[in-house]
Amino acid sequence: MEIKTSSKFVAESIGTFGLVLFGCGAAVVAGANSLGGLSGLGLLGISLAFGLAVLVFAYAIGGISGCHINPAVTIGLLIAGKISWRDTLVYIVAQCVGALLGACVLQQLLHGQLSGFTAGEWAYGSNGWGIGYQNEYSMETAFLVEVLLTFIFVFVILATTSTVGNSNMAGLAIGFTLVLIHLVAIPITGTSVNPARSFGPAVFAGGQALAQLWLFIAAPIMGAIFAALLWKLLGPAEKATPANLPKEFSI
Amino acid sequence: MEIKTSSKFVAESIGTFGLVLFGCGAAVVAGANSLGGLSGLGLLGISLAFGLAVLVFAYAIGGISGCHINPAVTIGLLIAGKISWRDTLVYIVAQCVGALLGACVLQQLLHGQLSGFTAGEWAYGSNGWGIGYQNEYSMETAFLVEVLLTFIFVFVILATTSTVGNSNMAGLAIGFTLVLIHLVAIPITGTSVNPARSFGPAVFAGGQALAQLWLFIAAPIMGAIFAALLWKLLGPAEKATPANLPKEFSI
Amino acid sequence: MEIKTSSKFVAESIGTFGLVLFGCGAAVVAGANSLGGLSGLGLLGISLAFGLAVLVFAYAIGGISGCHINPAVTIGLLIAGKISWRDTLVYIVAQCVGALLGACVLQQLLHGQLSGFTAGEWAYGSNGWGIGYQNEYSMETAFLVEVLLTFIFVFVILATTSTVGNSNMAGLAIGFTLVLIHLVAIPITGTSVNPARSFGPAVFAGGQALAQLWLFIAAPIMGAIFAALLWKLLGPAEKATPANLPKEFSI
Amino acid sequence: MEIKTSSKFVAESIGTFGLVLFGCGAAVVAGANSLGGLSGLGLLGISLAFGLAVLVFAYAIGGISGCHINPAVTIGLLIAGKISWRDTLVYIVAQCVGALLGACVLQQLLHGQLSGFTAGEWAYGSNGWGIGYQNEYSMETAFLVEVLLTFIFVFVILATTSTVGNSNMAGLAIGFTLVLIHLVAIPITGTSVNPARSFGPAVFAGGQALAQLWLFIAAPIMGAIFAALLWKLLGPAEKATPANLPKEFSI
Repeated sequence: MEIKTSSKFVAESIGTFGLVLFGCGAAVVAGANSLGGLSGLGLLGISLAFGLAVLVFAYAIGGISGCHINPAVTIGLLIAGKISWRDTLVYIVAQCVGALLGACVLQQLLHGQLSGFTAGEWAYGSNGWGIGYQNEYSMETAFLVEVLLTFIFVFVILATTSTVGNSNMAGLAIGFTLVLIHLVAIPITGTSVNPARSFGPAVFAGGQALAQLWLFIAAPIMGAIFAALLWKLLGPAEKATPANLPKEFSI
Repeated sequence: MEIKTSSKFVAESIGTFGLVLFGCGAAVVAGANSLGGLSGLGLLGISLAFGLAVLVFAYAIGGISGCHINPAVTIGLLIAGKISWRDTLVYIVAQCVGALLGACVLQQLLHGQLSGFTAGEWAYGSNGWGIGYQNEYSMETAFLVEVLLTFIFVFVILATTSTVGNSNMAGLAIGFTLVLIHLVAIPITGTSVNPARSFGPAVFAGGQALAQLWLFIAAPIMGAIFAALLWKLLGPAEKATPANLPKEFSI
Repeated sequence: MEIKTSSKFVAESIGTFGLVLFGCGAAVVAGANSLGGLSGLGLLGISLAFGLAVLVFAYAIGGISGCHINPAVTIGLLIAGKISWRDTLVYIVAQCVGALLGACVLQQLLHGQLSGFTAGEWAYGSNGWGIGYQNEYSMETAFLVEVLLTFIFVFVILATTSTVGNSNMAGLAIGFTLVLIHLVAIPITGTSVNPARSFGPAVFAGGQALAQLWLFIAAPIMGAIFAALLWKLLGPAEKATPANLPKEFSI
Repeated sequence: MEIKTSSKFVAESIGTFGLVLFGCGAAVVAGANSLGGLSGLGLLGISLAFGLAVLVFAYAIGGISGCHINPAVTIGLLIAGKISWRDTLVYIVAQCVGALLGACVLQQLLHGQLSGFTAGEWAYGSNGWGIGYQNEYSMETAFLVEVLLTFIFVFVILATTSTVGNSNMAGLAIGFTLVLIHLVAIPITGTSVNPARSFGPAVFAGGQALAQLWLFIAAPIMGAIFAALLWKLLGPAEKATPANLPKEFSI
């Protein structure tokens, strides 16, 4: 069954919108928030929000667009020969549109507090590094961790959706990988591994978040390319044509 | 195999009963509660309670009634042409009966504390907004967030149970979507996206909870209708007949 | 393939041993424990420990014994006509042996602390109610909540393992149901819904825990019987013979 | 399809690398860390990090190497007749290389903090016991708990991947078993059940961690051997040849 490009565009936009709304939303609305005796989500709850968002959309839109919702993933799959140049461009535009919408809605929600809301530096769940950001890690460490974790993320995506993977459980494994990535890296960079997820909040936060955005574009893409190259060496020979993808879950 | 209407009624009642008992029960009995050195469930534990309740009943009663346990979902599926008018009415009555029973049992349990129990405003896990409710968001923000999150919820339900979805994992994806929705929205409205879940506790809480109930009926239904309309545009052409539903999990 | 009775006995013993060791162990060793800056498991972590133990053993020993690891479940399945009288007796003995072993190991571990260990009332994760136990609920409330939650537990087991269930996901749904049950009821009774799980710790704790054990035998069994009777009314006609059970997961 | 030994080596290395990076990384980078109002991962978050790492790699590299990523598991499967002597050696070397790399990267990340980082005794998530380690349990208790929990771990692996298991859900059940093991044993030994996971951090931590490493090699291997022997008694007769393994998930 041929899926229309417009359907793929809408699917990638809604998925990335949801990732930013749920992930960054959980961090900013409920992460540190204690309500009466209720403790906030903390690092565990925020990590689950990002990862479960990918898990959920993998099963919802995986059959339509493959659920990349991440330009680094799309570029990794391009290198691995699993998506065309034309679709790559369509997907990345859709992802950026979705992320912008997600950050916009998040800003609206936060300003709906009756007591008012003041956006600090790196607002709306923006990624960053250095003095004043989370545990204040160096730029080199931020770059290293983003390359490395995106490498693992795209490696797991390529492996679980390959012929040696389990198409039924791939979405679950990929989502939980993103949970793991956040369990380690929130104190370092806030965890991006996804240029679109960094782009949306940075546009609305401005300042330092926007000035540091380049790293969260460059490092994830570099990690994704490494993973695609390793997979081409390691993986079982697969023909690089969309027709070869598993039917159920076609990342 | 034809399922009897009475079986569907019982299934929807038990499911909605369980959703209110587990979700609102976790919030009120164990959410803020610290026992000796044990920390309470907090926002993460409460979010998991609501979402896992839907996940669990999806696999238990999905084969009997489709496990809507939410009038907004039932209305969304009516618009999408996946359920009859007659069943829609039966389901909504069953859901309201189940939610009332759940809130009733919850009230009984809470009053079983030997030291006595005083029900505050918005008791029994009621939804709300404005001065005195959680983080005090405006009515407009409450309406926006309920429309938007129900839209995403019903979109995921329609997508995962469609021909491009994975019928095996649909219940898991739908349940985790409800987890995500709670991870973001508990500080805003307590998270409804389900008129029945708001109805049960509001009847027993009275006061503000009952006065604000209209929003948690109107906004979720509006979001569900938007999702159904988008799906009809986006989704692969499906014949709107029950006979066309996947056999295993027939939401 | 015919499974030997001795294999079933070993499987049920190991499963119940694991349930007590992981569930009660998490509660007593790590629940309230903060290590340096690390927070303890709290009510959420303990709930996950009990539920995930059932999930894990459902997939490990489900194909051998059906993974009841709970006398109330075994009796419910007897009423529903899914297990013989002879196997019922074998299973219950195996479950009590496993639970005793689990509580014994737990006692040994706790006394391995170099600073010494003092067992309080209701030690080793024992269930209870009344003055001095958790949030001090009445005996009537304890009875009600144990009947009701075991009813839901056994209902979910019967539904997910029936012909309208999903045999692949049944173990996951059943395990998460036990998580939900603990999310609500730990502050009330510590959550039993399982006479063997209460029996093991009570024998080693003695005192109040042993004096109150009767309730955690009577109430879960009553709830399980109600669920089996409802299922016989509600469920699609199934022949009450083991030969009729789904092959993969034969609870 | 025959998998090349070099592919298996790379897969086991990446998997064990990921286990140490995610598991120990979560513990050391984010476990005790509170960022502003965000609470750290605590014992629950760390337990999930270790277990989900195994879950994720089971679905990613299970089809390549079987995803042992643990020398005790490899030795258990050797005893059970499911892997050759030659592959056993290859796997263990690959696992140790991966664990060393993981601990090395973790050390680099921690030293990227602008305020500097001081490694204490038992640094980088090392396992241990006695005075000064976590809750200070005796060596005998540490040995007992490591034997027992590895026994259960390898028993679940053998059962879920056998002909009476569910190959689709085995990775999930095995991962959650490791979560359970950590929920109980972090306060006792930090939880090893895996000589490679202990080896990597101990090399970089030195001192007490290195001096106590022997226990975390001997005890897990002993537990794994017990499980393999019990399985050979209990399990349904299976021919001990790789050709007999389930195709999808070949632990």
